[in-house]
Amino acid sequence: MNREPLILVTNDDGYASKGLAAAIEVARPFGRVVVVAPETVQSGMSQAITMNAPLFLRRIREEENLTVYAFSGTPVDCVKMAFDYLLRDERVDLVVSGINHGSNAAVNVLYSGTMGAAIEGSFYGCPAIGLSLTDHAADADFDASVLWGRRIVGQILGADLPRPLCLNVNIPVGRPEAIRGLRVARQTRGFWREEFYRREDPRGREYFWLTGDFVNAEPQAEDTDEWLLAHGYVSVVPVQVDLTDYAQTRRLGELLHE
Amino acid sequence: MNREPLILVTNDDGYASKGLAAAIEVARPFGRVVVVAPETVQSGMSQAITMNAPLFLRRIREEENLTVYAFSGTPVDCVKMAFDYLLRDERVDLVVSGINHGSNAAVNVLYSGTMGAAIEGSFYGCPAIGLSLTDHAADADFDASVLWGRRIVGQILGADLPRPLCLNVNIPVGRPEAIRGLRVARQTRGFWREEFYRREDPRGREYFWLTGDFVNAEPQAEDTDEWLLAHGYVSVVPVQVDLTDYAQTRRLGELLHE
Repeated sequence: MNREPLILVTNDDGYASKGLAAAIEVARPFGRVVVVAPETVQSGMSQAITMNAPLFLRRIREEENLTVYAFSGTPVDCVKMAFDYLLRDERVDLVVSGINHGSNAAVNVLYSGTMGAAIEGSFYGCPAIGLSLTDHAADADFDASVLWGRRIVGQILGADLPRPLCLNVNIPVGRPEAIRGLRVARQTRGFWREEFYRREDPRGREYFWLTGDFVNAEPQAEDTDEWLLAHGYVSVVPVQVDLTDYAQTRRLGELLHE
Repeated sequence: MNREPLILVTNDDGYASKGLAAAIEVARPFGRVVVVAPETVQSGMSQAITMNAPLFLRRIREEENLTVYAFSGTPVDCVKMAFDYLLRDERVDLVVSGINHGSNAAVNVLYSGTMGAAIEGSFYGCPAIGLSLTDHAADADFDASVLWGRRIVGQILGADLPRPLCLNVNIPVGRPEAIRGLRVARQTRGFWREEFYRREDPRGREYFWLTGDFVNAEPQAEDTDEWLLAHGYVSVVPVQVDLTDYAQTRRLGELLHE
């Protein structure tokens, strides 16, 4: 590349999170960084967009090769604001979303605001990488994530892979030296089963907290992201968005066509 | 079936919308109906879940074979509340989500709260059908949608198709007699490009409205949902949730594995 790469950074934990600072650390050695991140925590926001409310934009910080905006919408709104407004006359070379506080392996890719933003970024023709650390703590240790994030960004920026290209990267909790390596994987099959915690407010109205457990449908499958994370590997799942279930189309046609 | 089917109805436009009343009309001839629908409009909420706030449940209506609840969360929260709390000791035979005011064809399946709920429903082992009408108006004419929705529900309830089974059904606007038939289709390739409307509030703060246009990447492809809707057909796309881009895994492995 002759010009300096332009990298968009976003996340779902909000512009003030430790994971966003770690994502900026990942991206900065490679070029100019523009951050458009949510004003507030947007965990679990999936690929949600804001259709019925106005959205407020604030410039938070401006220094050499780094501009940070906070935007009052969802992670996907942030990506759209960047590509379709703030950077609409520039070429963005890469989107980095994260680093998320918590795993986005398996079916979490569907609920994740981090991955919602990464997927949206890949729609604009540049590679997009979602980075997540399997640790929900606000003060999580992102050292290993930054190290592996930089390595992956360097390899992807220099490569000529077909587009759209979107990667769901998950890093196991632990110090860098404890990580056994990186493997390209597939999304683990399995689903969440919830337990609602029921409470009553002072006026007797019942309310609920959503909480649950992930049920892994294939815990022994060594090519899945969950298995790799449980065994100390960084997992990389390439993500695409054609949800058509081609295996069902013929049977369905026989049933529904007259 | 020996027992009367139990059908869960939900949507993303909220419990008071005309489309929800139409979905109840679709389901009621087939058995007992339980509705758990959002308190407020949840359009564009994708597969979002509420992780950091308590959720309030209200019983709105109770009559023979019909119970209606309003829940303060997202469409996916509603489905989880139904399966994991309200109906946890019963067998649900079908989920009907909708009828959405507006198309969920093509990439809209990713942003749609209607389809987020349908996908979530399919995780619980029963078939799930998302119904959408290509008309955003609050007073849209749902006659054709109810007719075709009932026909599809009847065929799916009596069939023995593999699970998970989730259908993205879109119905073109118009009177029933104008519809040319039903076709099983695939998800159209294409993406939204947004235009942000910039405004200033009375204190000079800038804010934005998100608005955009869908760019169809394959307008001539007759096996896509967009083509079928544009030509007067009901489109049915079976939906699955393994987002792994298997076409990229080998190349990525060569690049990223040492």
